[in-house]
Amino acid sequence: MHTIRLSLPQQAYDIVIAPGGIAKLGELMSGLNLGKKVLLVSNSTVFQHYGGRAIVSLENAGFEVSSCNLPDGEQYKTLTSVEKLYNTALENRLERSSTMVALGGGVIGDMTGFAAATWLRGINFVQVPTTLLAMVDAAIGGKTGVNHPQGKNLIGAFYQPKLVLIDPQVLQTLPEREFRAGMAEVIKYGVIWDAELFAQMEACDRLDHFQYLSENLLQEILMRSCQAKVDVVSKDEKEAGLRAILNYGHTIGHAVESLTGYRVVNHGEAVAIGMVAAGQLAVNLGLWEQASQDRQLALIQKTGLPTKLPTGIDRDAIVDALQTDKKVKAGKVRFVLPTQMGVVKVTDQVSSQAIYQVLQRMYI
Amino acid sequence: MHTIRLSLPQQAYDIVIAPGGIAKLGELMSGLNLGKKVLLVSNSTVFQHYGGRAIVSLENAGFEVSSCNLPDGEQYKTLTSVEKLYNTALENRLERSSTMVALGGGVIGDMTGFAAATWLRGINFVQVPTTLLAMVDAAIGGKTGVNHPQGKNLIGAFYQPKLVLIDPQVLQTLPEREFRAGMAEVIKYGVIWDAELFAQMEACDRLDHFQYLSENLLQEILMRSCQAKVDVVSKDEKEAGLRAILNYGHTIGHAVESLTGYRVVNHGEAVAIGMVAAGQLAVNLGLWEQASQDRQLALIQKTGLPTKLPTGIDRDAIVDALQTDKKVKAGKVRFVLPTQMGVVKVTDQVSSQAIYQVLQRMYI
Repeated sequence: MHTIRLSLPQQAYDIVIAPGGIAKLGELMSGLNLGKKVLLVSNSTVFQHYGGRAIVSLENAGFEVSSCNLPDGEQYKTLTSVEKLYNTALENRLERSSTMVALGGGVIGDMTGFAAATWLRGINFVQVPTTLLAMVDAAIGGKTGVNHPQGKNLIGAFYQPKLVLIDPQVLQTLPEREFRAGMAEVIKYGVIWDAELFAQMEACDRLDHFQYLSENLLQEILMRSCQAKVDVVSKDEKEAGLRAILNYGHTIGHAVESLTGYRVVNHGEAVAIGMVAAGQLAVNLGLWEQASQDRQLALIQKTGLPTKLPTGIDRDAIVDALQTDKKVKAGKVRFVLPTQMGVVKVTDQVSSQAIYQVLQRMYI
Repeated sequence: MHTIRLSLPQQAYDIVIAPGGIAKLGELMSGLNLGKKVLLVSNSTVFQHYGGRAIVSLENAGFEVSSCNLPDGEQYKTLTSVEKLYNTALENRLERSSTMVALGGGVIGDMTGFAAATWLRGINFVQVPTTLLAMVDAAIGGKTGVNHPQGKNLIGAFYQPKLVLIDPQVLQTLPEREFRAGMAEVIKYGVIWDAELFAQMEACDRLDHFQYLSENLLQEILMRSCQAKVDVVSKDEKEAGLRAILNYGHTIGHAVESLTGYRVVNHGEAVAIGMVAAGQLAVNLGLWEQASQDRQLALIQKTGLPTKLPTGIDRDAIVDALQTDKKVKAGKVRFVLPTQMGVVKVTDQVSSQAIYQVLQRMYI
């Protein structure tokens, strides 16, 4: 069991990495002053695998548990789904001292967090991420929210959980494509923060399936990725400055996701494409070496993630979509660009011309 | 011009009471680092009176202004209205540094605040309350939110404005019934916090219409009420303890509002009824003197507010509705009860029996 503490000005909480940890969920939540009532939120696939185990653990620890499954998929990350959680919270008479537990991937975590942030103006919240993507990214740092029909995560709140419990064993049941999606964020941490993590992954022969990772490498990936996220978030909870670096690959990534209706390309795949684009932008602007960009491209390819734009999206649509991104400031699109392995800079000095040029090379 | 500073651990802001202040809105917002784009949110009645003046002032100060009117009335304080604000924010490409300004009563302020709290995970927010109720209560302290079909303010967030601007001159166009509703909260501050404010109102011959208040008494009412709210909120932003005293009259008040579908009885009227009930409960429990309860009853009556339950509500429905209140803790309903003029205590030791007994006497 490995614990990372995330300390913020108003609160602090633990990220616990514990193989088999779901069976200890209730125990870990005891003593955190989380009230008696728990609403466990999941989707039916994840719930079938781990819901029973979580509920038994919670009940054994004395919690009174109700549960609610939401439909799976980014297209259901909407206010309508959150309203379903509000109704369930009301039916079960959740109180301000009660707790919502998110058992699932980023979609479940983001929606549950937003519902917890806004039900009775804020109740307790615990994250039990079950995808690699959620473990290393979405579940840590307090970003919650839902999509607007015209843009991802436009509606939301910064709201911190009281505990994040990561049980690496659940990755055994994660679909291959979902595993790869999470690896995109892990590669991101390598490029923006932790060159050693990047090198460790380079040293592994195959990365395109969970089964090729040694237990040791998986542990390193989880620990180093969570630590990177904690390092950044603890310095800048509400994205006033430094936190923006976590959006490496996300500027164009978000546009790609949005333009494909959140169906064709998943979040990690979009980030992979976005990282290739951002890396090439950095090379073209003289900020980064082509050799480093080649290393990034090779690692992304080894993970089995896409490096080209999906067919049917045109460049104009992407450049236009960038304008509605949350990270737009005074009308200027902000890019996170690498300068050396493990180091990036944030800039809004990227011309549409430069973006067009890079995108042009990214069609299959 | 009178300024009260509200200081909280993470932020501080001014409540400015300034006759004619709307014409200075832009000027007052300058220098607060509120970005360039402003979305002015109002309803068509208020907008017709003051929208033009506010926009001119904002534009003269260099802001780029768009506006959106929402339908008037508690029944429109819904997620659907907030979604309209999200769409307007998107159309006008509001950024994280942009500002939503609420020009209106509590309904407009609560919804605009919630939209600002949740759009792009939080943008700037300014309150320009135009009802007495909003001036002395809703606009101060950061409670934002909307109603759930089954309960008032069940969905929301604590989110502080960057400025509250109170222009007493706008009360001249406030309907009489709305004015009285605000007086209910002013009387509340007298009972829970400021016996001198209570005495000043007692000394005035008539209180049932704005025109009977001297300019001096109005100024006292605004200053003392805002100060009372600031005193309490600055000690307990998120209602962990002390802030609960602001709910004096609101426990039964909320149930009455909810059971009449937010149409028959307005918020202030419901609070007036709730204060009569809470006062009598306190007397019956031996906490408060009958003479003080009589003073409270007389002042409420002088203001023209109701002191009896509306016809058609039965006691069982009220007692049942109390269970879904946000302030329920471990299944126990919390009451704020006066012990002497200007002092209250919070208790969950009130039996359903005691509540029935008091309600029985409150039918016409």
